[in-house]
Amino acid sequence: MSKSIFYHAGCPVCVSAEHDIIELVGSSNVEIVHLVNDKSKMSDAEKAGVKSVPALVTPNGNVLHINFGASMSDLK
Amino acid sequence: MSKSIFYHAGCPVCVSAEHDIIELVGSSNVEIVHLVNDKSKMSDAEKAGVKSVPALVTPNGNVLHINFGASMSDLK
Repeated sequence: MSKSIFYHAGCPVCVSAEHDIIELVGSSNVEIVHLVNDKSKMSDAEKAGVKSVPALVTPNGNVLHINFGASMSDLK
Repeated sequence: MSKSIFYHAGCPVCVSAEHDIIELVGSSNVEIVHLVNDKSKMSDAEKAGVKSVPALVTPNGNVLHINFGASMSDLK
């Protein structure tokens, strides 16, 4: 199985969701991207269809937006 | 690991998220509850803190609301 990508921005709701996702999916199956610390990934995230964080992009390209935390525009 | 519970209401966004969650977590690790077909589970869902569907309640009791589909009040 290819990896999922979990995009977040360090907010409390993101970190809580991150822990849950890692526990459910397994840390080896998910890449964690912190969009505020690594703004070069922002365009990848937007291309994948991420509208808010935290969000999980699945291996088949679907985007699961989780517990709405912050809009992408708030991170720029 | 105890099971997660995925609550949904049969809407297209729910079904899409359901497939993604089953693929990520594994069907043996998640119980699927259709709240419109099984309204007796509504109070369990509300007690768990589910505010909208689709939502995933993790084994440690956290609620991940995914891709906001419908408020609980819309299902009653």
